[in-house]
Amino acid sequence: MTATHYQVIAHYFARPNQVRAVLALLAELARASRQEPANLSYEFFQNGEDPEHIVILERYVDAAGFERHRDSEHFQRIGAGQIIPLLTSRRVERYEGSAEE
Amino acid sequence: MTATHYQVIAHYFARPNQVRAVLALLAELARASRQEPANLSYEFFQNGEDPEHIVILERYVDAAGFERHRDSEHFQRIGAGQIIPLLTSRRVERYEGSAEE
Repeated sequence: MTATHYQVIAHYFARPNQVRAVLALLAELARASRQEPANLSYEFFQNGEDPEHIVILERYVDAAGFERHRDSEHFQRIGAGQIIPLLTSRRVERYEGSAEE
Repeated sequence: MTATHYQVIAHYFARPNQVRAVLALLAELARASRQEPANLSYEFFQNGEDPEHIVILERYVDAAGFERHRDSEHFQRIGAGQIIPLLTSRRVERYEGSAEE
């Protein structure tokens, strides 16, 4: 079955002494994001070779769903307001298409 | 700049007492995979909320490059031969396209 969706891979690089704080905030942001109507999944992972490198795999019904996530109160408060200031850099990759199940 | 490539997201679910072993084997497989001519990146991550859930983000020049990876001696020996038997399940997602840099 081929399902179409909008897959986001967000790479976050935490300041060395802020890794634990970023992970805790991401858990809070994940819970809120999963409630969004257009969100299909929201999971965050820590690099096995570089603990400061965290990746978020977010899947939405479509690009508009991701934009609504970015405009949401919880992303603005937790993501933009609290997490991003704790990062040295970040990179967001977007894929439209299908993932054969 | 829009670059086209072949992005693979592989979700591995390790047996509860095999997480450390899987991570160590993935480090070995990562080193070998990064030497492949068609490999652009190979990184593995552990879920921040479920340590048994490991994701590999692999990027290749094209689909053929990923197939050559699957046929490689090191994937057959380490991936298929040693890691996969330590998993309860796995899911591989493939995306062709571009990631705006």
